[in-house]
Amino acid sequence: MSAIDDLIKALCCLPGVGQKSAQRMTFQLLERRREEAKVLAQALLTAADNVGHCQRCRTLTENTLCSICESPKRQSSGLICVVETPADVMAIEQTSQYQGRYFVLMGHLSPLDGIGPDDIGLDVLEQQLQQGGIEEVILATNPTVEGEATAHFIADLARQHRITTSRIAHGVPVGGELGYVDQTTLGHAFSGRKRLD
Amino acid sequence: MSAIDDLIKALCCLPGVGQKSAQRMTFQLLERRREEAKVLAQALLTAADNVGHCQRCRTLTENTLCSICESPKRQSSGLICVVETPADVMAIEQTSQYQGRYFVLMGHLSPLDGIGPDDIGLDVLEQQLQQGGIEEVILATNPTVEGEATAHFIADLARQHRITTSRIAHGVPVGGELGYVDQTTLGHAFSGRKRLD
Repeated sequence: MSAIDDLIKALCCLPGVGQKSAQRMTFQLLERRREEAKVLAQALLTAADNVGHCQRCRTLTENTLCSICESPKRQSSGLICVVETPADVMAIEQTSQYQGRYFVLMGHLSPLDGIGPDDIGLDVLEQQLQQGGIEEVILATNPTVEGEATAHFIADLARQHRITTSRIAHGVPVGGELGYVDQTTLGHAFSGRKRLD
Repeated sequence: MSAIDDLIKALCCLPGVGQKSAQRMTFQLLERRREEAKVLAQALLTAADNVGHCQRCRTLTENTLCSICESPKRQSSGLICVVETPADVMAIEQTSQYQGRYFVLMGHLSPLDGIGPDDIGLDVLEQQLQQGGIEEVILATNPTVEGEATAHFIADLARQHRITTSRIAHGVPVGGELGYVDQTTLGHAFSGRKRLD
């Protein structure tokens, strides 16, 4: 069963897929979905060979510039949103609320792991701030210790170039119940309260 | 982001993988695991092109006969275990308790879906029972309505050829607590009780 075992082992490299799920996937693909298996194989090869980083915002793309960086309307918006990963870009895009450009750090500052400002492309970001045309830097890094530290670091950078910075709001999720929200989030929700007019 | 979108969509064909998991897999593969992505693509192509059914027991294999059907020791054991899927064979093999051969139905009888005896290979199984050399048929189909019906059907078949049949034991799982076991299982556990000597 060598080809089958190989496939089970290879599927285990996917995040969240263990031995049992890999077995189930393998048998389902082989019993009923061979065409889909081939389509998946082709998609993996194409993506692994062609996808690189956008030269301007560092997100994943097959072209020199991603579609957002190629849109003149978005480039001239004066807004730049700094996120940690391409998945964050996708999540924000799905809201259709934001019409500016992005900068993807592909990680966060983590001195203990040897990840400094240049490793997350802050030299590239600084060049872009220097070039002008940016009126506001929106910090959308994750609300973790590293994400907050990274946000503070970038805020300092923006301040040196006299550019307004903002942090996305943290608080009680819409549809969430107060009783199930953790203390830190609730603390943020109080300190970030808004006056009603 | 066409190559990325294609990969996300293709990953959604895997069982238990939705849009969000597919996104997470795609980004993780592209950010850190391109080599593993290529290995997976190759494994998918090899398996989809080469894996067929064993001519004797109908399990999935790349050869004419699977490794179990090629083992003379197992073929001469006189035992044949009937299971629904290749995954069941793998599960039983992992116990190392069984040293006979298998017959894989690749499904179960389901008249409402138009799945009759010949669709699950019972004509092939009958030929094998006729050829002799089998002393006991062990029925290890799932304890579902269809699995039980299939087991009864095969038991009748074996009886016609005067071959002993047995059904694997159903009862309280080892390590399980009685309070958490469902009524049907507990019923089976009582009716299948064994006298202690």
